Amino acid sequence: MAGILLRRSRKSGLPPGTPVYVGEEEPLPAHITVISYDEASYDERTVEEPSEIIDDLRSPDITWVNVDGLKTLDIVEIGTHMGFHPLIQEDIVNTLQRPKLDEYDDHVFFVLKMITYNQETEEVEIEQISLILGDHYIVSFQEASGDCFDAVRQRIRDNKGIIRKMGADYLAYTLIDMVVDGYFTVLEKIGDRVEEIEDELVENPRIETLHDIYGMKRKMIAVRKSVWPLREVISRLDKLGNSKFRENTRLYIRDVYDHTIQVIDAIETYRDLLSGMLDIYLSSISNKMNQIMQVLTIIGTIFIPLTFLAGIYGMNFRYMPELEWRNAYPALWLIMITVTIIMIAFFRRRKWL
Amino acid sequence: MAGILLRRSRKSGLPPGTPVYVGEEEPLPAHITVISYDEASYDERTVEEPSEIIDDLRSPDITWVNVDGLKTLDIVEIGTHMGFHPLIQEDIVNTLQRPKLDEYDDHVFFVLKMITYNQETEEVEIEQISLILGDHYIVSFQEASGDCFDAVRQRIRDNKGIIRKMGADYLAYTLIDMVVDGYFTVLEKIGDRVEEIEDELVENPRIETLHDIYGMKRKMIAVRKSVWPLREVISRLDKLGNSKFRENTRLYIRDVYDHTIQVIDAIETYRDLLSGMLDIYLSSISNKMNQIMQVLTIIGTIFIPLTFLAGIYGMNFRYMPELEWRNAYPALWLIMITVTIIMIAFFRRRKWL
Amino acid sequence: MAGILLRRSRKSGLPPGTPVYVGEEEPLPAHITVISYDEASYDERTVEEPSEIIDDLRSPDITWVNVDGLKTLDIVEIGTHMGFHPLIQEDIVNTLQRPKLDEYDDHVFFVLKMITYNQETEEVEIEQISLILGDHYIVSFQEASGDCFDAVRQRIRDNKGIIRKMGADYLAYTLIDMVVDGYFTVLEKIGDRVEEIEDELVENPRIETLHDIYGMKRKMIAVRKSVWPLREVISRLDKLGNSKFRENTRLYIRDVYDHTIQVIDAIETYRDLLSGMLDIYLSSISNKMNQIMQVLTIIGTIFIPLTFLAGIYGMNFRYMPELEWRNAYPALWLIMITVTIIMIAFFRRRKWL
Amino acid sequence: MAGILLRRSRKSGLPPGTPVYVGEEEPLPAHITVISYDEASYDERTVEEPSEIIDDLRSPDITWVNVDGLKTLDIVEIGTHMGFHPLIQEDIVNTLQRPKLDEYDDHVFFVLKMITYNQETEEVEIEQISLILGDHYIVSFQEASGDCFDAVRQRIRDNKGIIRKMGADYLAYTLIDMVVDGYFTVLEKIGDRVEEIEDELVENPRIETLHDIYGMKRKMIAVRKSVWPLREVISRLDKLGNSKFRENTRLYIRDVYDHTIQVIDAIETYRDLLSGMLDIYLSSISNKMNQIMQVLTIIGTIFIPLTFLAGIYGMNFRYMPELEWRNAYPALWLIMITVTIIMIAFFRRRKWL
Amino acid sequence: MAGILLRRSRKSGLPPGTPVYVGEEEPLPAHITVISYDEASYDERTVEEPSEIIDDLRSPDITWVNVDGLKTLDIVEIGTHMGFHPLIQEDIVNTLQRPKLDEYDDHVFFVLKMITYNQETEEVEIEQISLILGDHYIVSFQEASGDCFDAVRQRIRDNKGIIRKMGADYLAYTLIDMVVDGYFTVLEKIGDRVEEIEDELVENPRIETLHDIYGMKRKMIAVRKSVWPLREVISRLDKLGNSKFRENTRLYIRDVYDHTIQVIDAIETYRDLLSGMLDIYLSSISNKMNQIMQVLTIIGTIFIPLTFLAGIYGMNFRYMPELEWRNAYPALWLIMITVTIIMIAFFRRRKWL
Repeated sequence: MAGILLRRSRKSGLPPGTPVYVGEEEPLPAHITVISYDEASYDERTVEEPSEIIDDLRSPDITWVNVDGLKTLDIVEIGTHMGFHPLIQEDIVNTLQRPKLDEYDDHVFFVLKMITYNQETEEVEIEQISLILGDHYIVSFQEASGDCFDAVRQRIRDNKGIIRKMGADYLAYTLIDMVVDGYFTVLEKIGDRVEEIEDELVENPRIETLHDIYGMKRKMIAVRKSVWPLREVISRLDKLGNSKFRENTRLYIRDVYDHTIQVIDAIETYRDLLSGMLDIYLSSISNKMNQIMQVLTIIGTIFIPLTFLAGIYGMNFRYMPELEWRNAYPALWLIMITVTIIMIAFFRRRKWL
Repeated sequence: MAGILLRRSRKSGLPPGTPVYVGEEEPLPAHITVISYDEASYDERTVEEPSEIIDDLRSPDITWVNVDGLKTLDIVEIGTHMGFHPLIQEDIVNTLQRPKLDEYDDHVFFVLKMITYNQETEEVEIEQISLILGDHYIVSFQEASGDCFDAVRQRIRDNKGIIRKMGADYLAYTLIDMVVDGYFTVLEKIGDRVEEIEDELVENPRIETLHDIYGMKRKMIAVRKSVWPLREVISRLDKLGNSKFRENTRLYIRDVYDHTIQVIDAIETYRDLLSGMLDIYLSSISNKMNQIMQVLTIIGTIFIPLTFLAGIYGMNFRYMPELEWRNAYPALWLIMITVTIIMIAFFRRRKWL
Repeated sequence: MAGILLRRSRKSGLPPGTPVYVGEEEPLPAHITVISYDEASYDERTVEEPSEIIDDLRSPDITWVNVDGLKTLDIVEIGTHMGFHPLIQEDIVNTLQRPKLDEYDDHVFFVLKMITYNQETEEVEIEQISLILGDHYIVSFQEASGDCFDAVRQRIRDNKGIIRKMGADYLAYTLIDMVVDGYFTVLEKIGDRVEEIEDELVENPRIETLHDIYGMKRKMIAVRKSVWPLREVISRLDKLGNSKFRENTRLYIRDVYDHTIQVIDAIETYRDLLSGMLDIYLSSISNKMNQIMQVLTIIGTIFIPLTFLAGIYGMNFRYMPELEWRNAYPALWLIMITVTIIMIAFFRRRKWL
Repeated sequence: MAGILLRRSRKSGLPPGTPVYVGEEEPLPAHITVISYDEASYDERTVEEPSEIIDDLRSPDITWVNVDGLKTLDIVEIGTHMGFHPLIQEDIVNTLQRPKLDEYDDHVFFVLKMITYNQETEEVEIEQISLILGDHYIVSFQEASGDCFDAVRQRIRDNKGIIRKMGADYLAYTLIDMVVDGYFTVLEKIGDRVEEIEDELVENPRIETLHDIYGMKRKMIAVRKSVWPLREVISRLDKLGNSKFRENTRLYIRDVYDHTIQVIDAIETYRDLLSGMLDIYLSSISNKMNQIMQVLTIIGTIFIPLTFLAGIYGMNFRYMPELEWRNAYPALWLIMITVTIIMIAFFRRRKWL
Repeated sequence: MAGILLRRSRKSGLPPGTPVYVGEEEPLPAHITVISYDEASYDERTVEEPSEIIDDLRSPDITWVNVDGLKTLDIVEIGTHMGFHPLIQEDIVNTLQRPKLDEYDDHVFFVLKMITYNQETEEVEIEQISLILGDHYIVSFQEASGDCFDAVRQRIRDNKGIIRKMGADYLAYTLIDMVVDGYFTVLEKIGDRVEEIEDELVENPRIETLHDIYGMKRKMIAVRKSVWPLREVISRLDKLGNSKFRENTRLYIRDVYDHTIQVIDAIETYRDLLSGMLDIYLSSISNKMNQIMQVLTIIGTIFIPLTFLAGIYGMNFRYMPELEWRNAYPALWLIMITVTIIMIAFFRRRKWL
């Protein structure tokens, strides 16, 4: 049931704001990287102690603090140093959040779901990304040190595009855009599988095909849960005050919003296709059964009366005049062949043959 | 039909505001406990007479009056002493309420549904919790003296977390949070059962599996009825005037709102899965039937013509030349084997074998 | 199709505002009773002439005019005397209205649907109640002199509860409350039948069970049509100006609104259950068929080859060496038993036996 | 596909505002009648030249110009004379419009769909009615010179009801009311057919019943398409400025709005019933099949083993001791009867017999 | 999966605003035509260098720049010259856009989907049209140099209709209208196929019919995706400030909006019909199976007992008194005929014959 509902109950009865990791595996210790840049300069380093970050956040440069690993104690320490509300700390560690957006006085907190398609297990894997966007900084949290943001990092390093000319809001947009781009990749993989299943359906529908359809449906449910709420999050981003999202970044936000709608469209399309495929599957199966039944019926219907006739003349009554007749045997054959021809004609007329 | 619709009609024709208990068993007599605390002090005691509470409600301390047992007369007495509107008294006793929120001049009344999963009966049990939130006090009503609020009580006693630093609104939030946490526990249990049924479906689908699916659907309907309206209740809580919910508590309210949405999400997910499982079940069954039919058809189709042939040469006609032929018997065997091989080849080509 | 669509076409082509009774039976002549009361006094009498009512309506007492029987001429006479708009007169007589609310300058007109469950015919019966609420008076119209409002009348007579202390708006609320309470009674009856059908489904599903499910669905459709629009009517009542509904009555209106939502909830629940039951029915039937098929297949598959073997040695060829062998007969039995055992083992492994 | 989608493409590529008739048959030449009336006078005449109407439209009397036949050239001539926008001319001629309402500076244009049930073809026929409502006049356009508005004309002639006391807005209302009344007539016919099909379903479901259900569904789709948008049209009529719809007419508009909702309700009800009937049909068919299968199984299961036994003792082995036994024959009968009884008992216990 | 989801992932990880063509085939190099006209003059020419257009855009004439072919480099060059935002350039090239509308300071950008029905492949083909509407100019982008806008060009050349009297906003409307007219053509083709499938269903339903139904469903999904968002785009066009859409053009916009709703209506109608046809298909198939089963059952049920009887008297017991009886053989025939008649009567009564 991965990605659909997890061990949330571990938290029951604890005071609110208590950060408890709820994922299936032990969370990794937090690993902190700090990137600071402006149009001219660029600096990247690894940080051991959360306290070291404080100065960075105060500098007028754009600062991007990335934290990999959600070990509860580490997150609490980082959060406390940076002055994040306990509820933020709790939400970062609780990886069962839906995508959401919470506004605080001097920063915005939002949760995204990164989706990847594991080729080996053929499972959709979901990782939670938490972002805190302040005036000049972004703090991002990931479950594992994935490489999904490497492309962004590289773009900053190489001063490619306009990223170093824009503020932290544009960086936030870029990260969201990366996540949404990932949805397209996953949906394409799913689309390929859907096409394969469609072909299977036409050629040779089997019970495994049915389980595949159900498996795809389950995957669509998981992806849908991650994407649907994102739509609202991005639409609310667009409406945030000017102090947080400048006008020129907002254009980009609307663009990523359009992409989210495209993803949702695709999900709905696949759901429609999959439910149509289920109908096809069921009909193909019952069609196959029909053909088998037809054969049985035709064979049975033809031979059962003939066998009866043979049975009659296999009886041992002493007084059965036909047995003595000279041409009884060929005559019976004639009768049998006639009966068979009539029956076949009857089946033909009914289009059963 | 427990938890879905009950003996509400007992009330028909009575004047409105007449409290009538509508549950299945006789309600227990009310048992009152009073907890009062501020940041420094803590006091807990049992109260015999409702009139004793009045002074507590006037003190500047936070006062939590908990009433277990909804015996009608007792509730009316308590309600009248505290000056609660007759409709409130009626709603507390009528345990078929949907979660709801009613605003009065100096207090807010709301009804919640506590859900627990009874391991033995495998049934979802629903208990009604009524809360009245005033400026400095909370009055809570439960059907039975459950232990669901014990964790909160303990937290207050131990001065754990920030609960003793906050007002009655935060206490109200804490109680709602407990109830919502309970939903996660129940949904996890249901999730486990859903997974078991999924496994059963793949391995050996039986008619009992179908009844299980239907049973789970029924449970989801019951849970859904309790949770859906809660969403609106909490969203309205968030919009209550500042005098009732202070800004810093409101952050927590939004958090528990997010949890409610998560619960609703999970419910919808399970409903989707269950309806997908029904399709799988039906297909598996018809698949099994197909296989059985195929065997019957193959055996029947092969042997019916052969039996006919044997019948022919079992006839007692005096003039049947084949009977006298020397090699008729082995020749017939040859014919029979040939027919069989042709038929098997035909089935093979049609992928029926 | 009772209660779903009726002889409305009788009206086609007539000028609007022409009152035409559209029920199935001839409407009864109007029978008028007038109750007037204030906190101290109470008066109840039968009125022959509509003109006699006019004075009552002008008195400062609360006046409740109840009209049983919707004979068109009588209604028109009453309506004209009281100065009700021709459209009101038409709506009272046309008993196919949906619940609705029309505001006029000095009164409010609303239409309700009273539902009762006829135990004998097992049908849901729907009666239209029209209410006109003025400042100090209520005029109510019913198709037949039912006893559904007797409880209210009794409460006024006995000065029970607060009814004589409140205004005409509270009386209107009380009547609506009676109607909504009636829904609970009907839904309970339906709920009992649903439970019975559920039991039948598990024990012995038959084609009659299916017709029962369809019958219940039809009943739910009829009830739903009466209740859904009521929700909006009551919600609009709550928003009427203060001159019509005083603040303290409005609390009660919200209460009856909650009840309506409960009824709608129950209806939706039953619909969900019934559609789940249909799935169960269909599956049970196909499950039963499967078991029957399995028996046929097993018997057939075992005996068809054996019968073939017996047929072989029933042939009359002159040269069949086996026939002369000493132990051929017991040997054949051995072969037959072996074949049978192998087949049973095969069925066992496939879990068909 | 009549009434569902038609030869709209004939228009592709033409400039907008080009009137092109898109119906299936050649449109009739326009035939114009003018009725003008006030409370005292009444005049009715046929007009040959569109230019003659202009004076009528300027007179202070209420003028109703009715045009039967939508020959494109005629409509353009009339429209141009009266100064109607080219888009109006196009919409009148294009009979595939949905019901709609367009406001222009000094008139309102709306399109309605008149529905009639053709008893012979058992088809629903849809005719487009276009209305232009000005201050003192109405211009109505119909495809054919139907008699649907005759009743209104008669009412004006006879000065029946209030129609001659009211303005052109009331006349517009009367025409809409006629159209909506027509829906009730059609729905009643459909309702009767639905009932007949219901009876057929219980008594003797056949494949034709299924095609009937599908046919009714198609009819409901066609009716629905005509009625749904009308709801919005009428609701917008109610919100038009006071200059176009006076307050006292507006009451009537709300009444016809209620009727539209009733029609929509009935349509939804029928759709629900029809989809329930489909389930019943499918179940009845599979139920019938089950019964047939049961008979086959029982006969087969009983006689197949018995025939095998008979086959055994029909073998011609030289050494078969049983054949020589004195009581072998009656003993075998005994065995056969015993087997039969056991099998019947087995079927009984399984409730298959 | 053409037209449903494509190689969007090619873009993953690139900076936003990077134009990447995502269609299946290599994009064609851009081919630019410029048409400028006012009421009196008309000029049409082909342009090699994007820079040449700049002057045209500044002239007070209406200028329509049409670009066929979306080769990325060309589009970027054109877009940069004209000063379009990088996101516009990206959206033009990315042909997987949903129809959308983006407002910029001095122009409006919108994306449409042109649909054509390929008669040979029986596939729906979707082409993206991007339009940029400025004060005096329109720039349109198409994937291939289709002829869909030729009719408009011709109309401008011939000064037909009012097009040369109106502004660029009217030209924009005309182009949108062409696209929407195309939808009608495609839907008509689909409607014809739907009718053909309906006929097939009644006459001779086959598994291919089912695949056809599924294929039509897929087509409807593709068309729906292109049309649904267009509705919102056009409705937002209507609400654009007066500077972009003048009042007299807005009437036309409302007209094309109505057409869009008609298209959506037709799509929903087809979806309803198709899902009804699926039910019919499934029932027809199971009906056919039933008939076959009935024949098998009747033949089987009649002959199986008779064959048993024949088998009895084929036994070779030495002591079988019946064998010696003089009239045993005709007596047995009598018994057999009687049994047969009884059985046929039984089947008749059950309406199985």
